[in-house]
Amino acid sequence: MNSTLELLNNRRSLRAYSDQPITAGEKAAILQGAFRAPTAGAMQLYTILEVADPAIKERLAETCDHQPFIAKAPLVLLFLADYQRWWDVFNFSGAPERARELGRPTRPLQVGDLMLACCDTLIAAQSAVIAAESLGIGSCYIGDILENYEIHRELFDLPPYVIPLTLVCFGHPVSQRPAANPSPRFPAEYMVHTDRYRRLAAEEVEPLFRPWIERMQASGGKFVEGAENYGQSNYLRKFIAEFSFEMSRSAAAMLKNWE
Amino acid sequence: MNSTLELLNNRRSLRAYSDQPITAGEKAAILQGAFRAPTAGAMQLYTILEVADPAIKERLAETCDHQPFIAKAPLVLLFLADYQRWWDVFNFSGAPERARELGRPTRPLQVGDLMLACCDTLIAAQSAVIAAESLGIGSCYIGDILENYEIHRELFDLPPYVIPLTLVCFGHPVSQRPAANPSPRFPAEYMVHTDRYRRLAAEEVEPLFRPWIERMQASGGKFVEGAENYGQSNYLRKFIAEFSFEMSRSAAAMLKNWE
Repeated sequence: MNSTLELLNNRRSLRAYSDQPITAGEKAAILQGAFRAPTAGAMQLYTILEVADPAIKERLAETCDHQPFIAKAPLVLLFLADYQRWWDVFNFSGAPERARELGRPTRPLQVGDLMLACCDTLIAAQSAVIAAESLGIGSCYIGDILENYEIHRELFDLPPYVIPLTLVCFGHPVSQRPAANPSPRFPAEYMVHTDRYRRLAAEEVEPLFRPWIERMQASGGKFVEGAENYGQSNYLRKFIAEFSFEMSRSAAAMLKNWE
Repeated sequence: MNSTLELLNNRRSLRAYSDQPITAGEKAAILQGAFRAPTAGAMQLYTILEVADPAIKERLAETCDHQPFIAKAPLVLLFLADYQRWWDVFNFSGAPERARELGRPTRPLQVGDLMLACCDTLIAAQSAVIAAESLGIGSCYIGDILENYEIHRELFDLPPYVIPLTLVCFGHPVSQRPAANPSPRFPAEYMVHTDRYRRLAAEEVEPLFRPWIERMQASGGKFVEGAENYGQSNYLRKFIAEFSFEMSRSAAAMLKNWE
């Protein structure tokens, strides 16, 4: 196994960071990893916002479902899906007017543009994460940045066609001891289908969760209170948790500008 | 620079593949790279559909904006954003009923869930791409899979909460000669902001595109017919191209199930 495959296979999310700062050279390498990532039509439909101000990090630690470790990360990068830059370029360049002069149809920005921008943004983010990992710098994605859109829009002065899609915390690990066991994954047969989508059958729920149940039994873990099985436990703990309702509301608000 | 950073910095999209097949071991390593990718709440909100049937590859080469090289790729992976698996698990597990018994509020699937699934899906896709690259296997993302949703839904038998988000073609390069110059990127100052989003000003359009203009001049390239500048050229060639109207329509159709 080559060193890149080893890195991909051994990566864990890191939520506790040492005091060791991330040097300018390390940060440049992480950002460069993102910049060279593939991008639709080479349009780079994203912006990376470095959250440097400790007060803003503290605020994010609250608005992203109360996770104090965010404020302690030496490097916090907000990956914004960004069509605003190109939209402004089009308008500054007189592009819609030129199209009309040429008798071509024009169109507004739409959700398809947003989805393409989301692809660019995540591809860049994961490239940055892997670049960091290769330097011994751990990271953690914060999906909760999808919550509280209005607060983040105000905090970061986001124009309409910029969406806070994912937040990544970076830092050196506190110690070199081996990371905990990786979280289980579903058996490959459920994750990879051939030629047609194969929908899960009721009797497959048990084998699907077998790696998880085995881990739970080994660690003495339990389902959340009130849950009788893994599906119920996840549903109660995550899908209908307060943060999930907020994420649903917030994401719907983000999409309003794109319709 | 370590080998992973070199790989990230030197990667180019590859659209011409040798006849050398991708071995079972190589495919397993690519998929394993995806499986170990970080995922929101360890939910793995994606499915990888391997397009193995040559007739389906031919069809995709047409439906994805007429790109014949897709049919010639030895390995074609469709990355599906997938909340259907979990939604079915919740229902098979009696989760909504249990929540109601416990007096907890329930909710339908919504766009926030889709956005989280999109994050998982692209993070996995880029991990697969990097795993492949480390094995000397090139790749190309096909964003055009966002078009023609209804055709792809039928072709792959996709249930409502599964979205074809990105397609990736993989294969060995035809020769070992160095790849062409990489496509330019915007200067870093426009891509990375600190603490607040900095919206582009009109006078920044020229420096923004300087790397592109320099490349165009060096290669003797031209703007598309009718365009007077870079913004107009991109707008005419891409933003109001037929495929863009189709992508907008198709993506809006995909989102209907999530509202």
